[in-house]
Amino acid sequence: MSGTMHPEQPPHTPTPRPGGRSARVRADVVAATLAEVTRKGYDGLTVEAVAGRSGAHKATLYRRWGGVDGLVADALTASADEPWPLPDTGDLRQDLRRITQEVFSVFTDPELGPTPTALISAAQRSDIGAAALRAFFAARHQQAAEVAERAVSRGELPVGTDGTEVVRAATAPLYYRLFVSGEPLDARAAERAADAAALAARAGLFTSTPATPATPNPTSPDGN
Amino acid sequence: MSGTMHPEQPPHTPTPRPGGRSARVRADVVAATLAEVTRKGYDGLTVEAVAGRSGAHKATLYRRWGGVDGLVADALTASADEPWPLPDTGDLRQDLRRITQEVFSVFTDPELGPTPTALISAAQRSDIGAAALRAFFAARHQQAAEVAERAVSRGELPVGTDGTEVVRAATAPLYYRLFVSGEPLDARAAERAADAAALAARAGLFTSTPATPATPNPTSPDGN
Repeated sequence: MSGTMHPEQPPHTPTPRPGGRSARVRADVVAATLAEVTRKGYDGLTVEAVAGRSGAHKATLYRRWGGVDGLVADALTASADEPWPLPDTGDLRQDLRRITQEVFSVFTDPELGPTPTALISAAQRSDIGAAALRAFFAARHQQAAEVAERAVSRGELPVGTDGTEVVRAATAPLYYRLFVSGEPLDARAAERAADAAALAARAGLFTSTPATPATPNPTSPDGN
Repeated sequence: MSGTMHPEQPPHTPTPRPGGRSARVRADVVAATLAEVTRKGYDGLTVEAVAGRSGAHKATLYRRWGGVDGLVADALTASADEPWPLPDTGDLRQDLRRITQEVFSVFTDPELGPTPTALISAAQRSDIGAAALRAFFAARHQQAAEVAERAVSRGELPVGTDGTEVVRAATAPLYYRLFVSGEPLDARAAERAADAAALAARAGLFTSTPATPATPNPTSPDGN
């Protein structure tokens, strides 16, 4: 990611104190971006409105974030950095159920859901947004993989299990319904996705195998 | 879906012969829409360009399809109606592997992938597009559910298995990577998704249970 994606350390200023003015500006700008994208969507998002809401100068926003797409990308980066408490029930299936239940609850909640929904949709609209989205999900899968790693330690899963694959398997069916097929999502589907992932993990389906050459996704989410 | 979504039978004209002029116009317009959306994406798609490419009058396109979003939605509806040969290997896991391999191959193929990728992305941009997308995936899941129904008949899966859930579980991890997380997709991930779905299906995870109240997805894919 470019320097503009890490506005707490812009290239042309002395290193700011952590939690100093620069970090406060960023927090305000991220909050304003989230509020604006939630209300107006990507098509209605403007640097002017984010400036107005955050109290930052428009010129500052252009200089540090480059524009609307940089603002969206940085809001995702900031979200990825937020602490995210993981369940630790002592049972993989229960841990995965709590994770999918959390995804289900957040995205279908009329108060909580619109912001992440709008942010993900907005990020799909530009290359730097898509890169930030990829990094966001990769970071989340990495964090949540701990539930699988603990299951390996307990002897519940085979040694060599790829924890990120376990988490991806559990959550993919939810994101698929929310952002691709648009089919309704219910608590039972969330539970079933967790149970299926736990079962497959226990059967050793997510153990690492000799590396297959990965095929990079040849198209951007916009199809351009 | 509204009448404009089924241009082969517009409300103000006599019922056309199947395969007649009206059906030919529709086929040309769908092909032109696919070509245009592949090259230019949703943001570059215009009724003018579809008219020019298809040879249909602009006024006809506006009258029958309403505009760009109706064109995108109808292209999806036409895709859903296309025959789609299902594997029948006599083994659920192999059938599911062939299905996920097909999804993987199409979307990652440099020649074949860009059109469905662009069409799905474009459909996410309007309400009637999103409705057509939902109907498209529902139709595909319904068709492909036959592989699970045959497995039930063979005694490979428990009676009462929801075949659409089996297919959804197998394909969701692929669509998730392609359209949400943007993480790279490889043939091994496609195989693993099929194997995990087959395992969960055999364990009875996709049998119908007393209906849980479904929570409709409260937000459009655009977050508006």
